[in-house]
Amino acid sequence: MSPESSQWYDERFQNSSSIGYRIRERLHHSQSPFQKIEIFHTADFGNMLVLDGCIMLTEAHEFVYHELLVHIPLLSHPNPQSILVVGGGDGGTIREILLHDTVSHADMVEIDEEVVAVSRRYLPTLAGKLDDPRVRLIFRDAVEFVKDRDNVYDVVLVDSTDPVGIGEGLFSRAFYQNVLRSLKPGGIVAVQSESPFGVKGEVEAIVVKMKSVFPLVRLYWGPIPCYPHGTWSFVFCSKDNREPAIARPEAAQRIEAHAKYYNREMHRAAFALPNFMRRIAGQEP
Amino acid sequence: MSPESSQWYDERFQNSSSIGYRIRERLHHSQSPFQKIEIFHTADFGNMLVLDGCIMLTEAHEFVYHELLVHIPLLSHPNPQSILVVGGGDGGTIREILLHDTVSHADMVEIDEEVVAVSRRYLPTLAGKLDDPRVRLIFRDAVEFVKDRDNVYDVVLVDSTDPVGIGEGLFSRAFYQNVLRSLKPGGIVAVQSESPFGVKGEVEAIVVKMKSVFPLVRLYWGPIPCYPHGTWSFVFCSKDNREPAIARPEAAQRIEAHAKYYNREMHRAAFALPNFMRRIAGQEP
Repeated sequence: MSPESSQWYDERFQNSSSIGYRIRERLHHSQSPFQKIEIFHTADFGNMLVLDGCIMLTEAHEFVYHELLVHIPLLSHPNPQSILVVGGGDGGTIREILLHDTVSHADMVEIDEEVVAVSRRYLPTLAGKLDDPRVRLIFRDAVEFVKDRDNVYDVVLVDSTDPVGIGEGLFSRAFYQNVLRSLKPGGIVAVQSESPFGVKGEVEAIVVKMKSVFPLVRLYWGPIPCYPHGTWSFVFCSKDNREPAIARPEAAQRIEAHAKYYNREMHRAAFALPNFMRRIAGQEP
Repeated sequence: MSPESSQWYDERFQNSSSIGYRIRERLHHSQSPFQKIEIFHTADFGNMLVLDGCIMLTEAHEFVYHELLVHIPLLSHPNPQSILVVGGGDGGTIREILLHDTVSHADMVEIDEEVVAVSRRYLPTLAGKLDDPRVRLIFRDAVEFVKDRDNVYDVVLVDSTDPVGIGEGLFSRAFYQNVLRSLKPGGIVAVQSESPFGVKGEVEAIVVKMKSVFPLVRLYWGPIPCYPHGTWSFVFCSKDNREPAIARPEAAQRIEAHAKYYNREMHRAAFALPNFMRRIAGQEP
């Protein structure tokens, strides 16, 4: 689409449903070696990142996704020091991780350097913390990167695109097995796991695969207005049967004081599944 | 729009964000004395009701809205016998109410008889229970209807359109005062209360108004894919400070066994508010 032909950007999901925003202008478009990268200035929701036609975030509402992906696993861990982010090129996940003062080191393995460069320029409230000395940026395929990482991380966060194209390997059983091995004892993983209203089967497949690798697997969810059907799921897994309960109440209270979404009550409530999601998660409703 | 010009129906909300569905055909369109009524057959989500251009429901996902609006207040009441539904012309709210075997009578006061007629024809899984002998259909403005109803209902459910045009009076303080008077001792009210992502100020105004009338007011929420930004809020109020806790555990278990959304854990979790919704509800985050 060109800004001249329409003042709306509508993402058509599976040729079935759509979500869109009125836009004022397209600020950036480029084709990286991996994907088409676009930034739109929306009328009312700040700048918007679009990869290969899929809306990744709006500045106004990105807080929900990033707080759910980061604070729930990190606050369920008693002492998260070393973190791996898979993907996450916009920088929002790193920004939230660095709010945790236990964290001494975060590796961010993003395949597409150009997403980071574009985010630094057009999404400074997300990418602004990528230069923090605790962060190491690694521009490489995470599927390869995790193959030789044993017993390194307390928490691994998979902040990926959808399980098609470049994101596909990040949803494979082999990748999950390597992620498990990369974790220290007591380690935790959280991944974004697609739309429970739109692609039930895909969410279910992720849960089934992760259950075949991790001893404890829990589905959780939240409202993400710019994602298909407006609701998104996440999977929490742990290496040693640790449940997603708050392990550091004082830290949770500190995070809650500044968060827009996260609070201690939501930490629990995010795992309360409506009956149709219980079925997706393989639980009896 | 005509089915010929496009195969998509996109609702543009506040000229700012949009939600849409691919449609196969427009099955019905008419102009009632109150509003434009349309039914579309969507490609993947069943039939869709659209009033004055606003998507009201799709058959695939209407369960979330109707279960949240009905089961939470009815299961928080120890013995809900007499119910008032304001609006609700599609019949989904009545359908869920009749699952409660305590209910002996439900008045449904819908201003637009044509919505009921169209729903009977095109939304039979919703409107199919409107002929139940426990139901009385009253085609009248509910603002007028509640003026002379004293001490009649155990639960009042406001299943209205948005607070513009014909729905406007249903969001007034005077209406809430009449609803309060229409309740028996121990009575409960639940209302749909708009989009917390899209119109924070409107949700806040509803909460403030209801707090000035009812002694206990609690905001709750759920994912509604076809509504602006995909998330919707509801307000629970009670006449005698009754909290929205399950009052009949066995009945809740029975409802849960057949529900697609509702379960006892979600009954509680629906009231867990993310920080930004706590602010809307007037709570410190």
